[in-house]
Amino acid sequence: MTVPNASTPTPRAPETGGSVVISVDAMGGDRGPSVVVAGMAESAEKNPEVRFIVHGDQAVLEGLIARRKVLAGRCDIRHAGGVVTMHDKPSQIVRKGEGTSMWSALESVKRGEARVAVSCGNTGALMALSMLRLRKLPGVNRPAIACLWPSRNPQGFNILLDVGADIRADAHDLLQYALMGASYARNGLGLDLPRVGLLNVGTEEHKGRAELKQAHDLIEAAAAGNFTYVGFVEGGDLPSARVDVIVTDGFTGNVALKTGEGVAKLVGDFLKDAFSNSIMSKFAALLAMTSLKRLQKRIDPRRVNGGIFLGLNGTVVKSHGSADSTGVSAAIKLAFTLAESGFQDRLAARVAQGAAASASAAETGASS
Amino acid sequence: MTVPNASTPTPRAPETGGSVVISVDAMGGDRGPSVVVAGMAESAEKNPEVRFIVHGDQAVLEGLIARRKVLAGRCDIRHAGGVVTMHDKPSQIVRKGEGTSMWSALESVKRGEARVAVSCGNTGALMALSMLRLRKLPGVNRPAIACLWPSRNPQGFNILLDVGADIRADAHDLLQYALMGASYARNGLGLDLPRVGLLNVGTEEHKGRAELKQAHDLIEAAAAGNFTYVGFVEGGDLPSARVDVIVTDGFTGNVALKTGEGVAKLVGDFLKDAFSNSIMSKFAALLAMTSLKRLQKRIDPRRVNGGIFLGLNGTVVKSHGSADSTGVSAAIKLAFTLAESGFQDRLAARVAQGAAASASAAETGASS
Repeated sequence: MTVPNASTPTPRAPETGGSVVISVDAMGGDRGPSVVVAGMAESAEKNPEVRFIVHGDQAVLEGLIARRKVLAGRCDIRHAGGVVTMHDKPSQIVRKGEGTSMWSALESVKRGEARVAVSCGNTGALMALSMLRLRKLPGVNRPAIACLWPSRNPQGFNILLDVGADIRADAHDLLQYALMGASYARNGLGLDLPRVGLLNVGTEEHKGRAELKQAHDLIEAAAAGNFTYVGFVEGGDLPSARVDVIVTDGFTGNVALKTGEGVAKLVGDFLKDAFSNSIMSKFAALLAMTSLKRLQKRIDPRRVNGGIFLGLNGTVVKSHGSADSTGVSAAIKLAFTLAESGFQDRLAARVAQGAAASASAAETGASS
Repeated sequence: MTVPNASTPTPRAPETGGSVVISVDAMGGDRGPSVVVAGMAESAEKNPEVRFIVHGDQAVLEGLIARRKVLAGRCDIRHAGGVVTMHDKPSQIVRKGEGTSMWSALESVKRGEARVAVSCGNTGALMALSMLRLRKLPGVNRPAIACLWPSRNPQGFNILLDVGADIRADAHDLLQYALMGASYARNGLGLDLPRVGLLNVGTEEHKGRAELKQAHDLIEAAAAGNFTYVGFVEGGDLPSARVDVIVTDGFTGNVALKTGEGVAKLVGDFLKDAFSNSIMSKFAALLAMTSLKRLQKRIDPRRVNGGIFLGLNGTVVKSHGSADSTGVSAAIKLAFTLAESGFQDRLAARVAQGAAASASAAETGASS
């Protein structure tokens, strides 16, 4: 394990044998660095191509990594003494965040040493630092956080964005979310022609707020060849098989995400109650164990762990703060898939193309 | 069964023996009048005090009602030849809706013949006609639709409003929703001091849109003695036991409601898949039948069938368009509970009181 001076810019790390380097913020999650290192080990076991640059307390990390044979020779540790806690306000972190593991993890992406950063830390602080250090992609006004949503589609998930990077979004922001979400669906879920829908309170074209009607027209015009636009969708369509990417503003998306999680948890708890209700039902639960486990796996939030920050000069995966090693491993797997597919460059190209098309449409509109 | 001329205003129907009269729009639901009459019969069997004024095609209704002994002598039929369909636009219905069963059902409440109206028809048209015929309560700017949400609370449900009467709401509208929701919780759910929360993307006071911060202060000031204000709540709190009434704008509420329904349906379908997966799991499902039925009952959307229109001079219960007889019966039961509690007068008093307090606070603010 090498420990270069974090303040010296280094060139892109040599990726021998097709290896893909992920930058991991090992601190800042609710469960501490041991769970993060355990998640890295799970990933490393399943995927021989993955390598890590790990950021945090060097002594602690050296100890944790030394205990995992599968990580031997696959981790660079970068010491960072500071930790961003769940209670730190984004504005404070922007001013005083240098020297934290989160800052350091983003630096590795900024310098091109790693293709994607993964953190379990404070979402607001991570987004604020990402905007500060990685900067917005040319043509992007508001970056977005995209999450995966369990669905009836063959790929098992739909993409919902924005789920809380920003609480406002105008029609042009929503268009950019559509372009970025479609790009994520192509590279992250392997869908050639993703179907994109715009979240509204009804599917009829006359319904909803003015900015939604305008976004409807913009997205429809941008679809050709990029994705299929299915028009307005409703809350009930989030898990549906008629759409792959659902576009909304960060306020609505955040409420929908947390509502969905809350309801799934409620039904799960009611189910547990139902099966511990009598001797007979407990026996039935034993018999149905395999089926129930399969169900649990289908709706397990750990499997869809990983919100993606889109619209920056670099890809950041936000793992849930309370993620266990399986959750961290899922977030790393997602980071790996995106890194391997060259997602960042493709996304940048799509956004640039969309911005050009939008500008030319505006020009045509102005001259007509 | 008597059939008075619908155009002659009649005085409040004599309610012998403590009977409560509900006005029912028998047409306009997806499943037609036979399901509505079946739901009325279910209600009438459980509740000897309920009586009905039924609106729709007289010949059809006479035939359907005659087949239900329990309804004998408990229904007044009012002929209305027109039907509002699910595809009619609210604006058309406002102009041409006279003569429909929906219009007629609202007239019975307007005239004081019935205390509450129930309809399975087109929500947008029902709200538009309700606003036109019943008019807004003094002090109410935007009426709201409140729905019941399965929760971990002892009463089994939380109240969410607005779920789609209006897509916008400013701080004062949100305050009125809080007052009306609290009144509904007292009279509909029997809670003496309901806990009210304001839906946001975080529970910290610094988060969210400007109008939410303003509403936060207004609701806090109006709480004293009326209800307990718990502050901001998140999507995950909708089914939680730390709040009884969740206040939000109609756009967000509608998305949350449909998202919740969609996720519950998804988990339910996955559960069915899991139990029909193998011989063993099918056998387990048989053994667990009682428990599974109990679960199904707890999350059965038919049990919470009935959105309430709040903020009008009269109470209107909107039953789901696809409700079966159990669903219609649940909506009628809710209408009965509200009618019996004198909900409408209490609600009007609370709103008037809230408006006065708000005006006096504004005055104090202006003079200070």
